[in-house]
Amino acid sequence: MPVNLPEINPALLAPIQGIRLGWAESNIKYPNRKDLLVIEIANGSSVSGVFTQNRFCAAPVTICKEHLVAVKNNHVSGIKALVINTGNANAGTGEQGMLDALTTCQSLAEIMAIPVESILPFSTGVILEHLPMNKLLAGIPHAVANLTSDKWAEAAWTIMTTDVAPKAYSTSAQVGNEQVNITGISKGAGMIHPNMATMLGYLATDANIAQSLLDEITKEIADLSFNCISVDGDTSTNDSFIVIATGKNNTVIINERNDEGFNAVYNALLETAQFLAKAIVRDGEGATKFLTITVKGALSIDEAKAIGFSIGKSPLVKTAMFASDPNLGRVLAAIGYASRECESLEDLDTEQLELYFGEVLVAEKGGRAASYQEEEGQAVMNEAEIDITVQLHRGNEDATIWSCDFSYDYVKINAEYRT
Amino acid sequence: MPVNLPEINPALLAPIQGIRLGWAESNIKYPNRKDLLVIEIANGSSVSGVFTQNRFCAAPVTICKEHLVAVKNNHVSGIKALVINTGNANAGTGEQGMLDALTTCQSLAEIMAIPVESILPFSTGVILEHLPMNKLLAGIPHAVANLTSDKWAEAAWTIMTTDVAPKAYSTSAQVGNEQVNITGISKGAGMIHPNMATMLGYLATDANIAQSLLDEITKEIADLSFNCISVDGDTSTNDSFIVIATGKNNTVIINERNDEGFNAVYNALLETAQFLAKAIVRDGEGATKFLTITVKGALSIDEAKAIGFSIGKSPLVKTAMFASDPNLGRVLAAIGYASRECESLEDLDTEQLELYFGEVLVAEKGGRAASYQEEEGQAVMNEAEIDITVQLHRGNEDATIWSCDFSYDYVKINAEYRT
Repeated sequence: MPVNLPEINPALLAPIQGIRLGWAESNIKYPNRKDLLVIEIANGSSVSGVFTQNRFCAAPVTICKEHLVAVKNNHVSGIKALVINTGNANAGTGEQGMLDALTTCQSLAEIMAIPVESILPFSTGVILEHLPMNKLLAGIPHAVANLTSDKWAEAAWTIMTTDVAPKAYSTSAQVGNEQVNITGISKGAGMIHPNMATMLGYLATDANIAQSLLDEITKEIADLSFNCISVDGDTSTNDSFIVIATGKNNTVIINERNDEGFNAVYNALLETAQFLAKAIVRDGEGATKFLTITVKGALSIDEAKAIGFSIGKSPLVKTAMFASDPNLGRVLAAIGYASRECESLEDLDTEQLELYFGEVLVAEKGGRAASYQEEEGQAVMNEAEIDITVQLHRGNEDATIWSCDFSYDYVKINAEYRT
Repeated sequence: MPVNLPEINPALLAPIQGIRLGWAESNIKYPNRKDLLVIEIANGSSVSGVFTQNRFCAAPVTICKEHLVAVKNNHVSGIKALVINTGNANAGTGEQGMLDALTTCQSLAEIMAIPVESILPFSTGVILEHLPMNKLLAGIPHAVANLTSDKWAEAAWTIMTTDVAPKAYSTSAQVGNEQVNITGISKGAGMIHPNMATMLGYLATDANIAQSLLDEITKEIADLSFNCISVDGDTSTNDSFIVIATGKNNTVIINERNDEGFNAVYNALLETAQFLAKAIVRDGEGATKFLTITVKGALSIDEAKAIGFSIGKSPLVKTAMFASDPNLGRVLAAIGYASRECESLEDLDTEQLELYFGEVLVAEKGGRAASYQEEEGQAVMNEAEIDITVQLHRGNEDATIWSCDFSYDYVKINAEYRT
């Protein structure tokens, strides 16, 4: 079961003016389950995205990038709809996969009477198999027919693959007398579910945010949320993160970082993205522990992230966490080899750093802290939420990484997963 | 049990002229087991070493590097002895750890009447605990007292920590009418056994190899053997690899790569190092499969190694191998994100590459090969030895990586390991 992931409450998921959602059961992989989602986006919205760096990126990712370029080049006036299917990732599918992704867009374009390039397609599920186009295309009219603004919870259920629980979050930002709403959904979790690939995240707000500014902050927010999580270190072929600003709240107009409300809206978007990213880790395959790894005092954010991921990805650290074992040796060793992924760490002075489990100083001066009592470390490890903090004392940059433990169930699920 | 690791046969381990070995049972961690090894090296030998890149390197690694510099600067005439203890890694032990490593050298130096700087110390075992110096120092005279040339098998047993089986190998090179002998031992396996840290490897030959040439080839051989293996991706604090050329076979003198016998001796050293490196993987924690991952047609060896390790370290690939699952999607995804560790792969054209399981072409043109029948891939996966080959078609460089699968026992051993 997910680690401390609260159940979603549909009543608390605020509709976003300018966004309507509709789903269908199109039997792509399983009967009788929602597997196709259409998100309609009002005219005048800004839409930004960041995508997987995997060289084997899926056909829909390629199409998404092309259509966002078409918007940028004013070939179309903006993105008007997203179409998301589960059950099949349309990855590793060659030319046919590109045709299938385009055909999906064309079908929705005709029904909604919008340009093909104004649609972004997403797929998640088994890879190396072709989309069952007849089923998918048959589902699209049904999804369009039930478009309403209050389906965020159902949307969260629709995009799930092997996720145990749906992931959704709403918050608001106060700008003067105006309330800006933000709602988002996500699904896990990269290559956790490798044949059911893909981390997907969608955020929408009714604030009016200029396209170029939204592009910037989408990348920043991804780097502080979805790019700070690790379950098993694998990077999926389909990972996508989309932020939509509909501008339907016409009184909150943000063109620059200095504009009123920027900080409040930025922080609310970040809060939503971080909740959704952490939700993916909490629902990590076989996870029994949620790890928050904070690295302070680095020369650069890259350094801080490299150490955080070195700890958060280490199978030895993760198995120790599963066993509630306050094994500082494994954490210190993972810090020590982080230079493999960040050259500037080659002169890291291990004598200078401090390591904490929760509030407990466990290591300093290159070894175990003199004050450390193992019972104190054990008490931290016994909890489901474990904080690990590294203070490097070599600069002013910090980063936080979220990860989970490595359990028998991880091996079981990934060794037996094959349908 | 180790995967296809033949039992060592003491009668087949050739003594090396100029090398004597002696052991003691000094109760460092357990009673009644060999845990201290002294290797005596004849005057006039060349000795080279490569060591862990982990910033938390252990005290003995620091001392080894200093003493090799002392030889280079002619403060001492050469390395005359190695002293290796198991049961305690003397890592993460601060200043006291440095003193303990030096005191160990001093004790041996007095007994053998040689300079302190002519001794290289090695430790492997639990980290973050101080060496039990009384026990260790009491053992040294016993190890020196039983120095003989025929103890390579016993030496392989002595340096084991949680290894299931000892690792040793002998071969020879024919140079004109002369036979050059090479014998080596190793123990596993990096951070597989994190509190019993360390990969150690020792090779000796009776050939006469100039110091500067031996330094070069030691690094090359490490890069083609011990630096090509992965069990869990962690890098230990104590990893060390030492090559000794005693020169007692005076008729084979190699000062340059053009000298007669260079290729034969180099290849025999490489064969020995690769056997010992692969033996560590075969004895990997919980291993049931031995993976040979060959990447061909890369622009650089770095590219080939990055892809090999990306596949060989992926928990998803490794759990699939454990399940004998011909899961090409996970392997393709791991190829696709190898650019994270090698920038030049950012323009990798996935349409151009071919993936083989054994002799079976499983993927090409960005997806599953049209000719591929899953039964054929399944037959490859059912074996204990699995070959994976990637042909990139973008350059002329190749590399081979050895890895193992990821089983329930890996989690069990690493979650329960704590003594």
